[in-house]
Amino acid sequence: LKDTIRLDPWGASDIRDYSKLFDLFGIEPLDKSRFKVFASNRYIRRNIDFGHRDLDKILRAVENNKPYAVMSGIKPTGPFHLGSKMTADEIVYFQRLSPKARAFYAIADVEAYCDNGLSFTESSKIAVNNLADILALGLDPDRAYVYKQSEAIQVMNMSFIFSKDVTYNMMKAIYGTKPFGLYISALIQAGDILLPQRKEFGGPKPVLVPVGADQDPHIRLARDLAKKHQSDFKFVMPSAIYHKLTRSLSGEYKMSKRDPMSLITLDDDLFVAKKKVMNCLTGGRESTELQRKLGGEPEKCVNYELCVIHFAEDDDFVKRVYRECMSGERICGNCKKEASELVVNFLKEHQKRKGQLIEKAKELLKKSKEELISSLK
Amino acid sequence: LKDTIRLDPWGASDIRDYSKLFDLFGIEPLDKSRFKVFASNRYIRRNIDFGHRDLDKILRAVENNKPYAVMSGIKPTGPFHLGSKMTADEIVYFQRLSPKARAFYAIADVEAYCDNGLSFTESSKIAVNNLADILALGLDPDRAYVYKQSEAIQVMNMSFIFSKDVTYNMMKAIYGTKPFGLYISALIQAGDILLPQRKEFGGPKPVLVPVGADQDPHIRLARDLAKKHQSDFKFVMPSAIYHKLTRSLSGEYKMSKRDPMSLITLDDDLFVAKKKVMNCLTGGRESTELQRKLGGEPEKCVNYELCVIHFAEDDDFVKRVYRECMSGERICGNCKKEASELVVNFLKEHQKRKGQLIEKAKELLKKSKEELISSLK
Repeated sequence: LKDTIRLDPWGASDIRDYSKLFDLFGIEPLDKSRFKVFASNRYIRRNIDFGHRDLDKILRAVENNKPYAVMSGIKPTGPFHLGSKMTADEIVYFQRLSPKARAFYAIADVEAYCDNGLSFTESSKIAVNNLADILALGLDPDRAYVYKQSEAIQVMNMSFIFSKDVTYNMMKAIYGTKPFGLYISALIQAGDILLPQRKEFGGPKPVLVPVGADQDPHIRLARDLAKKHQSDFKFVMPSAIYHKLTRSLSGEYKMSKRDPMSLITLDDDLFVAKKKVMNCLTGGRESTELQRKLGGEPEKCVNYELCVIHFAEDDDFVKRVYRECMSGERICGNCKKEASELVVNFLKEHQKRKGQLIEKAKELLKKSKEELISSLK
Repeated sequence: LKDTIRLDPWGASDIRDYSKLFDLFGIEPLDKSRFKVFASNRYIRRNIDFGHRDLDKILRAVENNKPYAVMSGIKPTGPFHLGSKMTADEIVYFQRLSPKARAFYAIADVEAYCDNGLSFTESSKIAVNNLADILALGLDPDRAYVYKQSEAIQVMNMSFIFSKDVTYNMMKAIYGTKPFGLYISALIQAGDILLPQRKEFGGPKPVLVPVGADQDPHIRLARDLAKKHQSDFKFVMPSAIYHKLTRSLSGEYKMSKRDPMSLITLDDDLFVAKKKVMNCLTGGRESTELQRKLGGEPEKCVNYELCVIHFAEDDDFVKRVYRECMSGERICGNCKKEASELVVNFLKEHQKRKGQLIEKAKELLKKSKEELISSLK
């Protein structure tokens, strides 16, 4: 009876109609009039964030100046791509929104091993690079706890505790049939999501997890486990905010780290990045003539997506691009050139900032290791 | 086609014919003529150790004065019973056999949680008590690494690494259908068994795991995983030595911590212990008259088992008991009295030694935590 949409955190999810997720999985539509406080968030303002669970808890914490956390993580298998950037932007946004917010960022090196076979030594180097990215995107290191899963004793212990609460059938219902190792990664992720509520971090509190729609299975599992442990850990059920999945430059779902020309990374050489944008799929017609007559199709256009989702801060500019494309005024060649300039300018600034933050990134990892060590004593 | 014997590390295993395990699971019979070096081991000498895997590796290490490890663990859910004592005796024996041997002893607090729901705080107290027991049984603390699973980052990491190597069907084939949490405990145990071979502990080496026959599934899994990781970790496949399972005082398989009157613990009050022995199942006949005529049945007698396996050091005494029982000279009442004296004397001495070792036990746990912390730095 269920529809055919499968949300697979480890595979490709092709979601054309996000509203289906409301009925299928109980994600709530993001009613912007209720969350006006968050209107400064570009993803929310532009309907890229389409749904949530319990976002009200975060709203109340912000309004009442109460502590809350925003948490997510990265699998350190390669440079930051635009998907990682979206999550990072959300973390930075919700961390900076209130002085009472703390950010948690998990380096999912255990998952990088279980899913991609990357050794901890390899992923450790990548992690420093990834961390410099989120710092360059604006993360306040003083209110951030950044840690590697492979060193986080509490997370591992929680995953073992949670293993007692799940059955194979329950995991299959949530994730589909997956290798044993991925089910275990999933339990670790539940540990990550619930970590900010442990007493070492100030105890139970609202926690917002910004994720792509395909990660919802992790949210559901963590919420189930939080509910099961309300008597011992007193967990508050975690909140989530969901963004739409972005496509590869050739128009496919979802971004894959495997084909480097299909996606932009924050480490890209500026010349290469420009080339990638110039080659991307657009919503253009067969001929300039036809396009002048019919207008373009911005909904199909990856170039437009790059502007709306990732690189154009100015709402008026985005509206103008849309209007001009629809009316046939705007032709793809010029449009891509304009977009590639936005991308290149962003990358140039970002890479400059990032270069100065590598040491800070190492420091952050060291700090969390020290916290871990002192928690052991 | 397989026979009906099921080896279940978490349930009850009723093994009447140990020789079946040779064909069914590939355990090798323990040929005493090949292992004369170990004749000073009471369990080997008296055929209580009935089988092994790769014991030759340990023999060669002893003969050539090469490093090896002996490892096992305890689930800290209650006082030491006679099953825990057997494993502990074996660890002490193989540790003391060579100056190149190191003992590893895992406090299975994660398993105590997953299998018995015991919190880490509760099991932590029990662990100190259990450790004082193995110290009183002769463990040399200077060549022992004692650690809690919940604190052993390397063990947890290995269990995650191993989770990538197993399938649900493989676990089912080894362990039968078990809750998800127990499969995960099993992966942790594999991590425990392979820990002594990590480079922090001097790298690959023979490791002997002395266990009850019902624990063989853990040995098979650890050996499979060692084989799979010969290219990265360079693991030597671990060795095992198997002892027969002992019965409860009422004659049932296997010792259960759940019914306190059915088993003797090393913490027992001397008066209570005596009472337990006096109430145990014997191999006596219906009447004294019949017994004088037919002789007793020592094979059925738990009292005899207490002597042979656990408390009588003197081989001549054991032989005499057997002979006298078979001939009808020996009557159960007197025999139990004699056995209960052996038990009480042992417990008295043991409890005296143990009382002085509680601080040493705490120290040992502290030392391993310090090693862990310095390995993190």
